[in-house]
Amino acid sequence: MKAIVNVYLKEGVLDPQGKATRHALESMNFKSVQNVRIGKQIIITLDSEDREAAEKEVKEMCETLLANTVIEDYTIEIV
Amino acid sequence: MKAIVNVYLKEGVLDPQGKATRHALESMNFKSVQNVRIGKQIIITLDSEDREAAEKEVKEMCETLLANTVIEDYTIEIV
Repeated sequence: MKAIVNVYLKEGVLDPQGKATRHALESMNFKSVQNVRIGKQIIITLDSEDREAAEKEVKEMCETLLANTVIEDYTIEIV
Repeated sequence: MKAIVNVYLKEGVLDPQGKATRHALESMNFKSVQNVRIGKQIIITLDSEDREAAEKEVKEMCETLLANTVIEDYTIEIV
């Protein structure tokens, strides 16, 4: 079973990496770019058959290690 | 229009960040974790109405700036 975790900065938190990327794209003549935000995608392979238990476990991983919940939000998808 | 770009290391390319995360999770007693891979998720807001043109443009951004295609693959989703 796999869990796909997307960790991204909360709305309103400055994203210097995204801003630098936007400027780079603009300078490369991609004029339609309005905004860029950069987050992490973490793919976890789990030895688990229970979908609900897996989701609960991954949520705990996010809260304790994978995300900084002061400035970041996350989504979990079990596939 | 938004483009969600996921950039991840190709199969077989070592992922030290993922490995370190796996070890950390194991040491925190998440025993069911078998593997962790870490990639980037880039969300681009585009000033464009044409879905196909947007996808083509984002593909060009990936090839020229966002991904290192020697070691990375990417997926593009227009939403």
